Amino acid sequence: MSERLVVVGGDATGMSAASQARRRRDADDLEIVAFERGRHVSYSACGIPYWIGGATDGPDALIARTAKEHRARGIDVRLGSEVTTVDADAGRVLVRGPEGREEWTGYDHLVLATGAVPIRPPIPGIDARGVHGVQTLDDGEAVLRGLDGEGIRRAVVVGGGYIGVEMAEAMLRHGLDVTLVDRNPQPMNTLDPDMGRLVRTALEGLGVSVVSGAAVREVLTDREGRARAVATDGGEYPADIVVLGLGVRPATALARAAGLPLGEHGGLLTDRAMRVRGTERIWAGGDCVEVLNLVSGTFKHVPLGTHANKHGRIIGTNIGGGYATFPGVVGTAVSKVCEVEIARTGLKESQACAAGLDFVTAVIESTGRAGYYPDADPMTVKMLAERGTGRLLGVQIVGGQGAAKRVDVGAVALTAGLTVAAMVDLDLGYAPPFSPVWDPVLVAARKAADAVAADVRGR
Amino acid sequence: MSERLVVVGGDATGMSAASQARRRRDADDLEIVAFERGRHVSYSACGIPYWIGGATDGPDALIARTAKEHRARGIDVRLGSEVTTVDADAGRVLVRGPEGREEWTGYDHLVLATGAVPIRPPIPGIDARGVHGVQTLDDGEAVLRGLDGEGIRRAVVVGGGYIGVEMAEAMLRHGLDVTLVDRNPQPMNTLDPDMGRLVRTALEGLGVSVVSGAAVREVLTDREGRARAVATDGGEYPADIVVLGLGVRPATALARAAGLPLGEHGGLLTDRAMRVRGTERIWAGGDCVEVLNLVSGTFKHVPLGTHANKHGRIIGTNIGGGYATFPGVVGTAVSKVCEVEIARTGLKESQACAAGLDFVTAVIESTGRAGYYPDADPMTVKMLAERGTGRLLGVQIVGGQGAAKRVDVGAVALTAGLTVAAMVDLDLGYAPPFSPVWDPVLVAARKAADAVAADVRGR
Repeated sequence: MSERLVVVGGDATGMSAASQARRRRDADDLEIVAFERGRHVSYSACGIPYWIGGATDGPDALIARTAKEHRARGIDVRLGSEVTTVDADAGRVLVRGPEGREEWTGYDHLVLATGAVPIRPPIPGIDARGVHGVQTLDDGEAVLRGLDGEGIRRAVVVGGGYIGVEMAEAMLRHGLDVTLVDRNPQPMNTLDPDMGRLVRTALEGLGVSVVSGAAVREVLTDREGRARAVATDGGEYPADIVVLGLGVRPATALARAAGLPLGEHGGLLTDRAMRVRGTERIWAGGDCVEVLNLVSGTFKHVPLGTHANKHGRIIGTNIGGGYATFPGVVGTAVSKVCEVEIARTGLKESQACAAGLDFVTAVIESTGRAGYYPDADPMTVKMLAERGTGRLLGVQIVGGQGAAKRVDVGAVALTAGLTVAAMVDLDLGYAPPFSPVWDPVLVAARKAADAVAADVRGR
Repeated sequence: MSERLVVVGGDATGMSAASQARRRRDADDLEIVAFERGRHVSYSACGIPYWIGGATDGPDALIARTAKEHRARGIDVRLGSEVTTVDADAGRVLVRGPEGREEWTGYDHLVLATGAVPIRPPIPGIDARGVHGVQTLDDGEAVLRGLDGEGIRRAVVVGGGYIGVEMAEAMLRHGLDVTLVDRNPQPMNTLDPDMGRLVRTALEGLGVSVVSGAAVREVLTDREGRARAVATDGGEYPADIVVLGLGVRPATALARAAGLPLGEHGGLLTDRAMRVRGTERIWAGGDCVEVLNLVSGTFKHVPLGTHANKHGRIIGTNIGGGYATFPGVVGTAVSKVCEVEIARTGLKESQACAAGLDFVTAVIESTGRAGYYPDADPMTVKMLAERGTGRLLGVQIVGGQGAAKRVDVGAVALTAGLTVAAMVDLDLGYAPPFSPVWDPVLVAARKAADAVAADVRGR
C-alpha cells in the first residue's frame, strides 16, 4: 500500500528530503506532498546579500529548482500553502491553501522543515517602511525597490554578524554611506573580540562607520511613517534605508503547538537519524532544529544552508528505506566583506569557557601565498587548544584571498580530534601561489603547541 | 665544553636546522658552521619558475635570509665551500674552500642537507648551450639570459611534472611558442591519467603543444653547438631554448661514499627524529632523504620545500636539546598552470595497487563557488577509497580558483584515517563566494561512499 510523505517547508531541507526520498521510492510506493507558504521553493537565502549587492543575478538565479521542476520529478509542491496545525496523534496536518481554505492531509511520514524567522526586536518603528529583513526572495526584491527610491543615501545595518557584514558590503556597492550598528563589543561576534577587531578595521577601511556596543532602541520615522533614523542608547544614526541582520531563531511555533520537544535555543530536538525525539514518523532538519556541536558537547542552533542540505538528504535517505545519520557540527562558518575573508570553526574563548574547557591560545600573522608572490595578502590565524591534552578547540581566520577556506583544515582536525602538535606535521599543499612554505595554519599550530607545552611546564 | 654543529648544504633543511639549534643553544655552547658550495643560502627554489615567468621578482626576493643575516645570528656560513668527504668514524668532514684548498673540520653533530640534483638523461646534446635546468638561482639567471637572446621564439620543455608545467607557463609569459615533451601518457604523472588529461586540455587551451608518450632521445645542436631541436622517438621539435623539468634525485653521493644507509630511491634513511639510521650524531632531511608515505606504508623521495623546512626545524630542535619527530607525509602537492589549479594527496591508482591496496574511485564535477556566484569555475575532484573499509586513499583535483587548497581537507582526512563516508559529514566552510552548498570535496566523498557501499553489496 502506498504511503504519503508530507513536507512542511519547501526550502533546502524539505526539498532535499523530498528529492532524496523520491529517488529511492517510486511514486506508486510513496506519494510526496510539499507545502510551502511562500512563492518559491529551493532557493539560496545565502545568496540574497550578493544579489542585493549586484554581485550575482536574482531572484531566479538563486532558485536551485522551481516548483514546476519538482513537480516534473513527482513531488507535489503546493505553494502559498501554510501548515497551521500538526496533529501528531492522528498523523495529519491542517493546511490553509492559497484561497484561505483549510483542509486536513494525512501523512505516514512528516518532515518539518520550517526554517527560521529573522529576529525583529519589539521596538518602536521596527515595522516602519524602509526597514528590511533579508531572508526571503521577497525581502531581496523589497530592499532593491527601496534602494531605487529617490534620495537614498544613507543605510544603517543593524547587527554585525554574517548577514550584517554581508549587507554592509551590499550597501557599499550601491554607493551608500553605511553605518553598522551592533550591540557587541566588536563586529562578528562569532569570533573572539581580538579577531572581531580586525573585521572592524576592515569595515572601517572600506568606509563603513562601525558603532559597537550599541543596542537599538527605536527606529525613528518621519511624518509619512518612513524610517528616518536608528536610535541607540548612544546616539541616533540617520537612515534612508534600514537593514536588519540580527540573526534568526528557529521557526518552531507549529512544532511547539504540536507538543514536540524543543531545546534551550528553541529548536526541535532530533535523534541522529534526524527523527524528532520521541516520535516515530516525524523528521526535522535545517534551520528549525538544534544540532550537536561536537567540540562543546552541547546543542546549538546553527542555521546554515550546508547543514540544511545534509539534513534533508539524510531524512530522505531514511524515509526512502536507506540509512543515514548526522553526527553533528564543529561550528564552521565562512564569510567575507569585500576582499576580507572571515572564518571560524570550533569554539571561541567564551564558548570554550561555557563548555567547561580550559585552553591556551595562539595568534599568528602570515600571508596567503609565499611572501615574494604577488597578492600575498596578510592573514591572521588564531587557534585555541585544550590545556594539557593540546587538543584543537577552535580556529579563527581573518585575511585576504585564500584565508577563509583554510579553516576547513581546522574543521577536519576538530572532527578527528587532532592535537595542535599533530597539526604541525600536517602535509598541507605548498606552492608559492598558494601558501608560504609554512602554511599559516601550521604556523598557528606550532605556536599553539608551544603554548600548550609552556603551560604544562609552568604548572 | 662547547660542541660543534656542521651543516652540509645551506638551503631549507640546513639553515632551518642551524637556526633552530641556534635559538636553543648559545654560541658558547654550540658552534655552528654551515658549508654551502653555491653562492646563496636559504632560497626558494620553488619560486624560480615564477621569477623566470615574471610573476615575482628575483633573485634577491627569493632569498629568505642571506649568508650575512645568518652570520649576524651566530651561524658561520661558508659559501663556495664543498664538503667532499664525510669521515663518520672520526667525526669530521673534508671541505674544499672557495680557493680550492681542502681542510678537515671536526663535528659533534653533522646535518646532511645536500638536497637533490636535477635528472639529466645521458643523451647526446644534453649539455649544449641553450639547455637549462631550473634548480638554482644561477639556473634562473641563465634561463633569463637565454631568453634575452635574439630570435628566441620556440621553447621546448622536457618533462610534464610540476616543474615542467610551471616552466611551460613561464615560457608562455615570455610570449614563446611552447612545446611540452613528456614520456608519460598524460602530463602531471603524479595524477591518474584521467585527471592528467584535464591538465593536458588546460595546457592546450593556453596554446601549449603537448607531446605525450615521447621519450627524449637527443638534443640536436647547430654548428655553434647551440640546441636547435629536441628529438624524440616520435619526432623532432625545434627549440630556441630547452628547459629540463625531469625531476630530481637525492644528492647522496657524499653519503653513499661515507657508507650511510640509502633507500631504494637513493635517499638517505633516517629514524623519526631525522637521525640517519645507525648513526648517533648524523642527521639528514629535505630533498636528500626518503620519507615514509603514511598511506602506502612505503618510503618515497618527496622533494618539497615544505618537508625540507619541517625536517630542518625538527633536526635543530633535537640538536638543540628538545624533542621533535617527523611522522611522514601523505603525498600532498599543489601547483598551477596559469589559472588552472592542480592538486593531489594520498595515492593515485597505480600507487594504491603497488601498495597492495584495492579501491573504488569516484570522479565528480562541481564549481569552486555557488553556481550563481561570479567566477564559479569548474572543478573536477577524484577520490580513491579502500574497498570494504571505505578509508580514504587519495584525492586529486583539477580546476579553477579555489581548487588546489581544497586538497588539504583530504590531507587531514588521510592523516586521521577517515573513511569517505565520514567525510560526507565534514563541517566545511560554506558561503556562496567560497563554495557551493555542497562543497566539491563533500560531493566526491558522497559518490565515493556510494561506490564503497555498491562494491560491498556486489561482492
